[in-house]
Amino acid sequence: MKFTAESILNVTWLRQVAGFPSAGVVVAVSGGLDSMTLLHALHTWCGDNRAPDLHVAHLDHGLRGAAAAADAQLVAETAAQMGLDWTVERADIPHLVTSGGNLEAVARQVRYAFLRRTAERLGAAFVATAHTKSDQAETVLLRLVRGTSLAGLTAIAPLRPLAAGTPVQVIRPFLNTSRRQIVAYAQHHGVRFREDATNHDLSRARNRLRHRVLPELEQLNPQVGSALARLAAQAREDQQYLMEMAQSWLERHARRAGGRLALPVMELLALPPPIRRRVLHAVAQQAEYPAVASRHVAAIEQILLPTDAIGKCVELTGGRQVRRIADALVFTQA
Amino acid sequence: MKFTAESILNVTWLRQVAGFPSAGVVVAVSGGLDSMTLLHALHTWCGDNRAPDLHVAHLDHGLRGAAAAADAQLVAETAAQMGLDWTVERADIPHLVTSGGNLEAVARQVRYAFLRRTAERLGAAFVATAHTKSDQAETVLLRLVRGTSLAGLTAIAPLRPLAAGTPVQVIRPFLNTSRRQIVAYAQHHGVRFREDATNHDLSRARNRLRHRVLPELEQLNPQVGSALARLAAQAREDQQYLMEMAQSWLERHARRAGGRLALPVMELLALPPPIRRRVLHAVAQQAEYPAVASRHVAAIEQILLPTDAIGKCVELTGGRQVRRIADALVFTQA
Repeated sequence: MKFTAESILNVTWLRQVAGFPSAGVVVAVSGGLDSMTLLHALHTWCGDNRAPDLHVAHLDHGLRGAAAAADAQLVAETAAQMGLDWTVERADIPHLVTSGGNLEAVARQVRYAFLRRTAERLGAAFVATAHTKSDQAETVLLRLVRGTSLAGLTAIAPLRPLAAGTPVQVIRPFLNTSRRQIVAYAQHHGVRFREDATNHDLSRARNRLRHRVLPELEQLNPQVGSALARLAAQAREDQQYLMEMAQSWLERHARRAGGRLALPVMELLALPPPIRRRVLHAVAQQAEYPAVASRHVAAIEQILLPTDAIGKCVELTGGRQVRRIADALVFTQA
Repeated sequence: MKFTAESILNVTWLRQVAGFPSAGVVVAVSGGLDSMTLLHALHTWCGDNRAPDLHVAHLDHGLRGAAAAADAQLVAETAAQMGLDWTVERADIPHLVTSGGNLEAVARQVRYAFLRRTAERLGAAFVATAHTKSDQAETVLLRLVRGTSLAGLTAIAPLRPLAAGTPVQVIRPFLNTSRRQIVAYAQHHGVRFREDATNHDLSRARNRLRHRVLPELEQLNPQVGSALARLAAQAREDQQYLMEMAQSWLERHARRAGGRLALPVMELLALPPPIRRRVLHAVAQQAEYPAVASRHVAAIEQILLPTDAIGKCVELTGGRQVRRIADALVFTQA
């Protein structure tokens, strides 16, 4: 096994990403094994390539009590030893989670807002996170278990805009790297880390998959993690292409006026089912019509064809509706 | 729970299948729970709809010794009681499996050849098999574990040509029916069956998924079987559409002459990656070039772009090769 930074970073691909790392990289570091190893490998590789300095960002979620202070201290010490600047912030996630709220989802939202703020303040084009091939495989399985279509199988993106309205992109240099490779690299280089502080946002479902299901599947195929990660990558290409077809159809056929959006029924019916399904999903997911889910798409398809469906209506959540009129499907806001 | 034939057969869909059941149906019956229940439900439903008689087909694989005779007897008795004709044949699968051959694969091949022969002899348009939603979910998981792309997720087809060169189609009326529904129906109607003789062709991998992995996943989502079956159905639509795009491109761009097939490189490069991948797969899978697998597709893509790849060659199995010449990719036979 090789222990170079190049061997655990996806460098062939990283070199093809425009602006990486020269346009500035904020590394999200929890203090755990994966992110401390990412920091070590990126720092080594950037040094070899005379790239500008990385910036280290650490968020204390306010969930780990005294251990959190030690996490933050290790991250800051490591950054200082590397001669890098760092930003440490503290959030109070338990306080932010309203009753019935999802702790994981809130923690994620606050963490990414912090990373975005940090990158924008520094004018950095990238936020690097340490998601691994093992995380990818678990995410694919989790989506499969909860119910998904091709869109869900795309799982974790190797590179994507951090959010609408910012030029910052999230990049995952470890998405093709297995946990085993990371452990070996960390041992070889004496990478310091603390018991992974991100474990707190592993849901019970993910833990169950990691500790009970994946070992069982590895009995059948020791390479199952790679197989699932490869599926995610191909699904991403397929889904992106199909979505482009749907978007291009929408640009040509959707008519908007006064908070209404109308789609021509005959043209919808002429579409191949995979494109029609995605057109309805895309319309449904636009900001004004956020509430249409898969079961709504199925219901809408029911009123597309029959002439006796004219006048019929599918209720979406939030008081929105879709009505079939003579030759169009009309989406209205509440 | 309802116990009518309509409630466990996918009748809304069956009614849309041209020629079913009026064009003749051979029911594949092993004597096990699933297929004996399928026979009972189809017989009831066809009787209610004044359809022509079903024909019952049973193959003794020569794998179960004395038990096989009892299987065949139960199937024949049941058919006779229903007033249906039946065909029972005996194969010697162990004798047909050469050393190192795959018993399951050979058994499947012999069984489908028998079903095809029986349907063609009777002029029946359909062979009905008792694959269930549970089989579908297991097949999706099995493909995922072994490594698959979208094509593999399509899993078991609800309706497909039995083989090239025959008009007979295989139909699966239980593909949306869970094992639980089948058990309930069989108990309610006193359907007789024998310990499923098809269990012998369940691979160890499938048994492991059924008994160890799926129960674990059901802890996370009791409806995981339905979720996987729905994914298979959507994957089938997506994959079919993408394959049609690839086939249509091939018809317009492939040039054939003297056992060679040439694809224009510039046009290949202009294709969206999901279509390009499928074009290469489709060429590879045609009878003359059967040996190109996913890794070959990846290797071929490597010699598409760089000008210094001109003259380079990817070796396929069986002595076949693909060579990049100036402006084309040329597939040659051994």
